[in-house]
Amino acid sequence: MKKMLNKVEEAVDEMIDGFVKARPDHVKRWAGNPRVVVRANQKGPGKVGLVIGNGSGHEPIAVGWVGDGMLDANAVGDIFAAPPPELICDAIRAADTGAGVLLLISNHAGDVMNGEAGADLAREAGIEVETLWMYDDISSAPRDQLDRRRGGPGTTFIYKIVGARAEQGAGLQELKTLGESVRDATCTLAASLTPGVSPLTRLPMFTLPENEVFVGMGVHGEPGVASMPAGVADDIVAFMAGKILDDLPFRQGDAVLAMVNGMGGTTLMELLVIYRKFAECLGERGVELAADPLIGTYVTTQEMGGFSLSLCRVEPSMIALWNEPQGAPFFAM
Amino acid sequence: MKKMLNKVEEAVDEMIDGFVKARPDHVKRWAGNPRVVVRANQKGPGKVGLVIGNGSGHEPIAVGWVGDGMLDANAVGDIFAAPPPELICDAIRAADTGAGVLLLISNHAGDVMNGEAGADLAREAGIEVETLWMYDDISSAPRDQLDRRRGGPGTTFIYKIVGARAEQGAGLQELKTLGESVRDATCTLAASLTPGVSPLTRLPMFTLPENEVFVGMGVHGEPGVASMPAGVADDIVAFMAGKILDDLPFRQGDAVLAMVNGMGGTTLMELLVIYRKFAECLGERGVELAADPLIGTYVTTQEMGGFSLSLCRVEPSMIALWNEPQGAPFFAM
Repeated sequence: MKKMLNKVEEAVDEMIDGFVKARPDHVKRWAGNPRVVVRANQKGPGKVGLVIGNGSGHEPIAVGWVGDGMLDANAVGDIFAAPPPELICDAIRAADTGAGVLLLISNHAGDVMNGEAGADLAREAGIEVETLWMYDDISSAPRDQLDRRRGGPGTTFIYKIVGARAEQGAGLQELKTLGESVRDATCTLAASLTPGVSPLTRLPMFTLPENEVFVGMGVHGEPGVASMPAGVADDIVAFMAGKILDDLPFRQGDAVLAMVNGMGGTTLMELLVIYRKFAECLGERGVELAADPLIGTYVTTQEMGGFSLSLCRVEPSMIALWNEPQGAPFFAM
Repeated sequence: MKKMLNKVEEAVDEMIDGFVKARPDHVKRWAGNPRVVVRANQKGPGKVGLVIGNGSGHEPIAVGWVGDGMLDANAVGDIFAAPPPELICDAIRAADTGAGVLLLISNHAGDVMNGEAGADLAREAGIEVETLWMYDDISSAPRDQLDRRRGGPGTTFIYKIVGARAEQGAGLQELKTLGESVRDATCTLAASLTPGVSPLTRLPMFTLPENEVFVGMGVHGEPGVASMPAGVADDIVAFMAGKILDDLPFRQGDAVLAMVNGMGGTTLMELLVIYRKFAECLGERGVELAADPLIGTYVTTQEMGGFSLSLCRVEPSMIALWNEPQGAPFFAM
């Protein structure tokens, strides 16, 4: 199946070429490694660096979220492959101003292994590094095994809130604790309709029966937990919202941030129809939005049809951080 | 094929429900007609209204572009159907503050017919209305028959530049003339890879041979003008950029705004790879970017795979207007 690419093995480098050329005031390549993208105006001493390494193919996350008030550096891995430890270490070096670096790690086996190894390499080079494992997908493990959950689109809340606090000059330990608090209050559940096409194989990444929607699939096609008839969006959204609300659980009067993420091929019309029902479900439980929801295509799996719902219960201090300005080129609030 | 919708005949109204619920500080329904979306904080007397009516199914354009510095009102038609004249007239009423209304019309037969009829209805009701036909697609007619060209993604430049000038208080005739100047300096060419699925029929909207890319197809699947092998993105982009540059023509030293628009199912990685080559082609001609390019999914045809390239030659005054802030919820610059 068709993609607008040249040689697939050059796609990631060419993507970065296009990105730094398109937003020269916002991002640039780090001089020490062309696979590390950093803020064009890096902060001076005292700013804790915020970094992630991740496989490509899920844009705009994470390379598009490098920018003021968000990521300081991104180690851009190959398509669907965790970056090697050396590359992650380079991203940590790029973001280090002497105040330490918080390495975000989305909880997938390869990302954890390479991320922790990259952090160790950086520590050996004398940089203070903490890692923050991010997870939110309630379908991937029960609540009493939180750290076995996969990282999903709800980790977005961590990037933004921790990013804003780092910009204000907070220290490494405070940022890690803040990130843990956001993570532990975040729940995501996804539903898949149609597969994306892998740029590597040019084949669909999985198959789904026509007329069925799979709830709980991961961003790489990890198996779902429930199949539902594809007919009525409101039924699917109500089912998913119920699972999310029950998980934390979210209670009457809780203030939340909400996100409806499209996985690539799901239209804005659909995302808005989904949000309409999601908001209704929140209202029925007395859960209150602390800010306008994120609705859009943030964490993708190529042109996959599907979406996820995320909620994060927030304290007033987190809301203030959420509302701080940010300047990442492809993070639209 | 699957969509996350309920009854398709209710999809547009449910989309609007979700939109106004999600961005209550930015947009609302007009009290006089639930299919008219207006700015939440409408401007007082003296502001010329900027309005468009269009079929749904191409979001975020145009309903997502209602907001400060962009549209004052949008008449939201059924899926792929121009809104009826009465609805367009209501959107004009909603946007009228006594200073007149500029009705944008994307040049498609139904939109022109209903738009002009809607403008006439509003004039009969005592409102001063001018219409601005927007067209930019160089594949749909030669340059000596400009007004037979279709409206495409490059019309975005008109919304933004005229919207900013309207916000500054310019009069109706000046805004129309400005819009014509932007339009006449704008060229767009599109390429299609894979069809979108119609929400109405749940079937692909057209078919394309595997391994071929069609250049010049319209947003509703109107026939293309050339077929190219789907293999190498750079070849396709260079071909298209050449056609665009030759059309106006754009010359060495010209200052331009540029846009790479994804039609729905084309990934940001692809759009950035495309931009990289597009920028190289501009550089070879000595054409200079006046601002960061728009790169994203702005004008869609469901989950269609494809993209368009647009250029607009700009005067310094237009660049200043381009850079003015705007507050439309789904227009990300």
